[in-house]
Parts: sequence; structure tokens; C-alpha cells
Amino acid sequence: MEKKYVHGYTPRESARLVDQATTLAEILHHDTAYPAGSRVLEAGCGVGAQTAILAGNSPGARFVSVDLSGESLRAARENVDAQGFANVAFHRCDIFRLPFADESFDHVFLCFVLEHLPDPAEALSSLRRVLKTGGSITVIEGDHGSTYFHPDSAYARRAIQCLVDLQAAEGGNSLIGRRLYPILRESGFRDVSVSPRMVYVDSGKPGLVEGFTKNTFIAMVEGVGDRAVRAGLTDETDWGRGIRDLNRTTGEDGTFIYTFFKGTARK
Amino acid sequence: MEKKYVHGYTPRESARLVDQATTLAEILHHDTAYPAGSRVLEAGCGVGAQTAILAGNSPGARFVSVDLSGESLRAARENVDAQGFANVAFHRCDIFRLPFADESFDHVFLCFVLEHLPDPAEALSSLRRVLKTGGSITVIEGDHGSTYFHPDSAYARRAIQCLVDLQAAEGGNSLIGRRLYPILRESGFRDVSVSPRMVYVDSGKPGLVEGFTKNTFIAMVEGVGDRAVRAGLTDETDWGRGIRDLNRTTGEDGTFIYTFFKGTARK
Repeated sequence: MEKKYVHGYTPRESARLVDQATTLAEILHHDTAYPAGSRVLEAGCGVGAQTAILAGNSPGARFVSVDLSGESLRAARENVDAQGFANVAFHRCDIFRLPFADESFDHVFLCFVLEHLPDPAEALSSLRRVLKTGGSITVIEGDHGSTYFHPDSAYARRAIQCLVDLQAAEGGNSLIGRRLYPILRESGFRDVSVSPRMVYVDSGKPGLVEGFTKNTFIAMVEGVGDRAVRAGLTDETDWGRGIRDLNRTTGEDGTFIYTFFKGTARK
Repeated sequence: MEKKYVHGYTPRESARLVDQATTLAEILHHDTAYPAGSRVLEAGCGVGAQTAILAGNSPGARFVSVDLSGESLRAARENVDAQGFANVAFHRCDIFRLPFADESFDHVFLCFVLEHLPDPAEALSSLRRVLKTGGSITVIEGDHGSTYFHPDSAYARRAIQCLVDLQAAEGGNSLIGRRLYPILRESGFRDVSVSPRMVYVDSGKPGLVEGFTKNTFIAMVEGVGDRAVRAGLTDETDWGRGIRDLNRTTGEDGTFIYTFFKGTARK
């Protein structure tokens, strides 16, 4: 099954993903560390934005990072090599047909992957097969429906909805964060616990205004503008207003809120 | 100026407010404590749901709790007396015309008040007058636009929007949480800091399912059903579907998310 990726595979998108992970690393990953000697599967590593953080936080663990895109894997390998980590092996494969023996990993990790899959529960079941009994799974996803801001704007909300709709048309679900708890349970995991990670931004936090609201979130929305217009979901005038109004939330009196969800569970 | 209160003044509503505060007390109030001897103004104490928590967390502080409604003040006094707190004095007055000298309080506290006022910044300016230079203000507000849930439902979202619209028609703003930062700054306060307090509920948290989703949030929405129908914002069929779908989020596979905002600042 060919995995579609709503944000595309351009170099600019790769840069955005790396920036995004660097900005969010502390919020999302500070409490993920694997013991020395443990074997960890990173499913859907993409361009390696999270891989380098994982490898750095758990220098004694051995990571196997897989993705369906050979191009992304090359970028991931370059990214990880450039940072001097030697504890990551890369494999090109499909999450739904993993070429690994049952119960061959101590832990499984995936981040921003389920949102792009038509059947996230099936993916989790496939990952559960290769996880040892008692081993942990960690799943991080966003939820675009968690977004709100001041000043509020129907145009800005509509621009975000275009991204939600495009992702849904490709079989994904960008509102998946709120569903992590039931999906993990439906996939047979136990001890499921979900921890929301809110990013709250006001002008007292200039690093987040730049690093999150502008360079991560608005950049992500802007990246689908041409396709949203071509798909008839909006027109250029309304789209431009939406992006303008999103940028207004980065002003002195603006606020911007988005929430990621981090789920952990055991097999 | 007569202050309208969207939720009304019925005994059932009083019980809901007290339940709500008990459930949320830890999330909202655990980090508010005033030094012994300090004089604290609680503005808009209502039926005293927060007053008892404040008095209990800061037994050495002296509270002056004010409200425009004599009926609410009587309930607040009974509530505080029943819990044995002797460090609260009650006064009936208008936040916009406070009968207190300039700089006569060490600290000011208000919770779920600004959302009901047509000019929240003016209220904050009035409160700032009676606060000593260097004293703190603490403001807690919800934001109904922060609500999302699984399973998602347009009927449930519409029912919540009815509450937002009714509150707006009475001059309030139930989306005020996201605006705390700019409003506090516009009102002349410094060192403004806003801390979001998310309530994330899944079926692994049965206390929150009952105490927050059902008995606080859904009860609050249900309370405006008759008025929403009378105002033509919905009809009985759609309203019933909305409430049914809100209740679906309290099931085994449901999740429910709401966020309060706690702002602190200094004069």
C-alpha cells in the first residue's frame, strides 16, 4: 500500500519537519528514554526529525528506524549521521508488513504517523506483533481540531479546515490526537495512558511565536495552499485572508493554542 | 449596571457551581496561596464555590468577597460558614464601583467572572485601583471554544455554540480564556503570565468522566436548553441530539477535552 503524505516530500518540507521537532523536542520527548541495550523500533521515521532526538536521549539503546519512503530514509540517515549518532539502523519497509520476527523489539515508538494512515488501529496491531510482551509503545500525534487563537477568525479556521479536509481525502485523520486512548485499547494494548502536551503561545513567549506558531504551524498550513485552491476547498482570496489572520495571532495581543497527545501503553 | 448571569440563579445551578469547584479545585487552585496577614479581594464570589477553597488554602489571609447578587452572597456565606472558615468577610457591591480605598488590598482574585462582563478590561482596571502597587492579581477563566471530544459530533458542537451565543447575547464572552494575556496587559498590569489548565478526560479517569464531563460541563450546557430553544438558536430535536452526543463522549471509547486559563500579574 502506497502511503500518501499530505505535506509532500519537498526539501522545504524536510526543513520544516526538522525545525518543528527541534522546537517541540522538549515538550514532546523530554520524558522518553530507553534503557541501555534495549532494542527500539521507530515506525515511520520520515526524515529523521525525531530519530536524532530519540538517539540522543537514549544513547545506550539501539534504534531500528523504518519508513516507506527511500528518499525520506536517505535524509534521515544524513541527519542522524551529521549529529554523530551511531545507534540507529535504517530499513525501508511498510508498517503493515514489518519484516521482523514476533516479539523482537523491547519498545516501539512512533510520532506523527497514525494521522496519515487510513487504518491506524491496524498499524498498531502490526506493531504490537513485533513488540515483546511487557514492552512499551509510545505514540505521539497532533490534533488540528485542538487549534484556537486570538483574534479569532473564520477565515483562519477555514484555512486550517482545508488542511484537515485534504488529509482526510488522502485517508488520514488530523484529528487523531483525541482518539489515541481508544485506538490504543482497541489494538490490544493495556495500561494505556494519554498525556496531552499543550503548546500555549502569547507574545511573552517570542521563541514559541517564531518557532511554533509561525515556523511550524502556519508554515504547515501555508504548504497546502495551492492544493487547497486546486481542490476547490477555497479560493485565493479567502486563503490569503486565512493566512493573514493566522499571522495576526503572532502579534503583540495575539495568542495561539495547539495540543499534541502522547500515549503510552504496554503489550 | 445590572450584571446578567447566563447560568441563572436556581438552587440546581448553585449545586452545580459548588460541585464544579470541588472537582476542579486541585487543577485550578493548588498553586494559589496567600501569606498570613495579607488582605485579599475576591471579586464576584458568586455562591462561594471558590471562596471556601481560597479560605482553606490560605487560612492566615483575610478575604473580602464581593458580589452583585445578595442571594448569591447569602449562599456563599452559608457555604463558607458550614465549612468553618472565619477569615472571610462578604460585601454586596459592583466590581465597577468598588467601595474600597485605592491600594487597599494586597492581592485580588477572580474566577469565572470576566466571561460574564461586557467590558472585562474595564473591570480589571477598577480592580487594579484598589490593589497595592506590587500586589498580585489572579484571574481564572474557561474558554468554551477549547472544547473538543471523541466521537466528534456537529450536533454536540452546535449545542455548545448555543451556550456561547446566549452568553454573547447577554454581553459576555465565553471564549475569554485565550484572551487573558492581552486583557491583563491592556488593563495596565505587568509581569503577566498565563498558565493553561487542561482537563483531559478518557474512560481511564472515571472521576473526571462523572465529576467534570457529566456533572460540570454537560450539566452546564443542559442548563441553557430551554432558553436556546426559546431564542430560536436550536430546536428540541437537534438539542436532544447534541446532549445525547455529548453524553456519548463519556463512554468507554470517548474522550473529552476542555481548558481553563489562569492568569497572574502584578500592579
